[in-house]
Amino acid sequence: MHTRDSVMASSNPVFGDDKPVDRKASLAGSINPSRAYERYVLRRVIDAMGSPSFTVILWDGFSVAPVHKRPIATVHIHSHAALMLLLRYGDMGFGDAFSDGSITVEGDLVGFLVEAFQNSQPPGLAGLVKRLQQPKPRANTHDGSRENIHHHYDIGNNFYQLWLDAEMQYTCAYFPEQEMSLEAAQQAKMDHICRKLQLRPGDRVAEAGCGWGGLARHMALNYGAKVSSWNVSSEQVSFAVERARAEGYDDRVTYVLDDYRNISGEYDVFVSVGMLEHVGRDHYPALGEVVDRCLTADGRALLHTIGRNRSRLMNPWIEKRIFPGAYPPTLGEMMDILEPHRFAVLDVENLRLHYARTLQQWLVRYDASYDEVVDQFDDEFGRAWRLYLAGSQAAFLAGALQLFQVLFTRERNNTLPWSRQHLYPG
Amino acid sequence: MHTRDSVMASSNPVFGDDKPVDRKASLAGSINPSRAYERYVLRRVIDAMGSPSFTVILWDGFSVAPVHKRPIATVHIHSHAALMLLLRYGDMGFGDAFSDGSITVEGDLVGFLVEAFQNSQPPGLAGLVKRLQQPKPRANTHDGSRENIHHHYDIGNNFYQLWLDAEMQYTCAYFPEQEMSLEAAQQAKMDHICRKLQLRPGDRVAEAGCGWGGLARHMALNYGAKVSSWNVSSEQVSFAVERARAEGYDDRVTYVLDDYRNISGEYDVFVSVGMLEHVGRDHYPALGEVVDRCLTADGRALLHTIGRNRSRLMNPWIEKRIFPGAYPPTLGEMMDILEPHRFAVLDVENLRLHYARTLQQWLVRYDASYDEVVDQFDDEFGRAWRLYLAGSQAAFLAGALQLFQVLFTRERNNTLPWSRQHLYPG
Repeated sequence: MHTRDSVMASSNPVFGDDKPVDRKASLAGSINPSRAYERYVLRRVIDAMGSPSFTVILWDGFSVAPVHKRPIATVHIHSHAALMLLLRYGDMGFGDAFSDGSITVEGDLVGFLVEAFQNSQPPGLAGLVKRLQQPKPRANTHDGSRENIHHHYDIGNNFYQLWLDAEMQYTCAYFPEQEMSLEAAQQAKMDHICRKLQLRPGDRVAEAGCGWGGLARHMALNYGAKVSSWNVSSEQVSFAVERARAEGYDDRVTYVLDDYRNISGEYDVFVSVGMLEHVGRDHYPALGEVVDRCLTADGRALLHTIGRNRSRLMNPWIEKRIFPGAYPPTLGEMMDILEPHRFAVLDVENLRLHYARTLQQWLVRYDASYDEVVDQFDDEFGRAWRLYLAGSQAAFLAGALQLFQVLFTRERNNTLPWSRQHLYPG
Repeated sequence: MHTRDSVMASSNPVFGDDKPVDRKASLAGSINPSRAYERYVLRRVIDAMGSPSFTVILWDGFSVAPVHKRPIATVHIHSHAALMLLLRYGDMGFGDAFSDGSITVEGDLVGFLVEAFQNSQPPGLAGLVKRLQQPKPRANTHDGSRENIHHHYDIGNNFYQLWLDAEMQYTCAYFPEQEMSLEAAQQAKMDHICRKLQLRPGDRVAEAGCGWGGLARHMALNYGAKVSSWNVSSEQVSFAVERARAEGYDDRVTYVLDDYRNISGEYDVFVSVGMLEHVGRDHYPALGEVVDRCLTADGRALLHTIGRNRSRLMNPWIEKRIFPGAYPPTLGEMMDILEPHRFAVLDVENLRLHYARTLQQWLVRYDASYDEVVDQFDDEFGRAWRLYLAGSQAAFLAGALQLFQVLFTRERNNTLPWSRQHLYPG
């Protein structure tokens, strides 16, 4: 890596002739040239990032470009207002300006975001101050959860069908071979989970947060399990119920439009894939009590969740605009669910790079359906979701997010497989 | 399971005619018959354990036996003093009385201890009081660690050679097939660890706590690694150094008689097997700093340790008589080592039942060499270590102890194997 020796105060030789492509931004850009203090602050921000490999161009052509290396992307800031949003509100301002088109990124969006993630964690006191300033995620009380989930998951099944796989798996896939298709990798993810849970015919399964019902269907049809799945997203549950009836497995799977805290009954297996992100730290003890209440003596349980290596709030833009109430825990924080009940962790697997790959494939499909997205919603929505998918891929690539699968049982369960060999057949 | 309907206040029909076998205890037993309050308290203690399947017989023949089931063991309390030790000091009193022969156990010692472990965790306030009463483990400062380790590991290599495998592995073995020999399982453990660490020829390895040097030797001879191993046990290091010289691999392995906190240099791999139990919670941040200081950007690290499902001090008798300073952490507590440095946990495997099996095989070998143990030390030592090995096996069987292998890397390391398939060759 070269170091940034100086900041070029001229237009970039490669991208300098680029014209803003966005009409709105183009209009905004015509108003005033950038001022000396704006240029100064921009330089300071970019210098603080070390040696980033992207170019930044302001509305008047002023640019800051990498030294001794070819830029992977060019960030166009199309107005004074957009620059102010970015400098004042950081990730939040960037997200909103990207969504309204007053910041655009040309070139490798994900690569640019990886660099931004790797350099956006202020250390020491500055980091602490930033964290204290960030508002807590919206509360996940019973009512709060329903609203938070509604915000994200009830925006239309048609929309998700544009870019998810056929099974509508909206969680990290598992690629036993790196080059397999998304469709195959989502099937492999479901099988990997079923094998970890030693799922057997006749097993009673409680699922907390079932999405569009694909895993419950897979467990019933391919493993002979009897599944009850809870979810507070009415759109998702309607879809799942309708499919179960149409395909005739509604005798083996029950989808319940209710909060996971109301799960009742006794089960051989407890599974939750991609719900813990929406539970919130305050409610981990409640989740632990649910599992403790419903799991048999020899029962197996699995939590699959986005996580962190160190405690940190969700990216504020994602939390506000995309996923209200979301919080990805560290492994240590997850133990607040398990340790009060002395649950024994048998296996933790981190599938971080699998989620990066999943998101990459979602983004390809999303871009291919971009016009339909804009037709269903509008440009701002289309750009916001593009940033969310690309930013999430970048966060997993940069190590800012992890994907933990945690398998556990009761402390005194000695009916365990002797090794994990059974997870790797063939 | 039958419930205990009543307590038999007569000698047990099966074991009632047993005579105490220990001379000392027999003499003690001849003094006075047991008193009404002693019988009452003993009954209360046994009732509180639910429906245990062992018989307890006092020195005068008074016994409490299981109802509706055949006892798996008979606990002989040979004197008033032994009963008082047990009732006043719990595990501590039992351990000391077992060691001095004033309590003996006939039949299935491990099975009896499993029941004792499963029922010796007083809930709620009583548990809290008990925990607060228990002294903290002895401190693991630099001097403290040396003394604590000396207490256990420097009692004579000849002693450990009596019952360990040929490689002197004094940690949990790995049995990919349940019926394999201890020797094979210890080799398999070392290979399992080397595979998790993706060990390659030329890799520089730092090992914290190397025992008698077997893993370092294995890594050098079978994987072409260059290993530096730290240990504060002078007996172990002498043995390891001598063996490396005799077998001619001292150019590839360096054994250092020093504290893990003094590890210096840069390494591709950091590994610690069975040392964390002796580090103590107060020093977890220091251990994290050591790893952070010495691990390369793409380095891999593994901690292998006895652990808990919920925070709890070591059994007080073990901590006092066998392992001063020992503390097995929960997974959550282990995160105090990793989270400050944003290390990414890739894989956690719980090998609890493998440790139960390892201990079972150690106990068989120990019992076969029992006369030699008593010749090297004395009866009290022989009985104390027998209880320690049997009690540890019971603790793993009962789920009171876990065995965690935690694999981790730096957050931004993307040179990871795509799955864990490589851990399961063939």
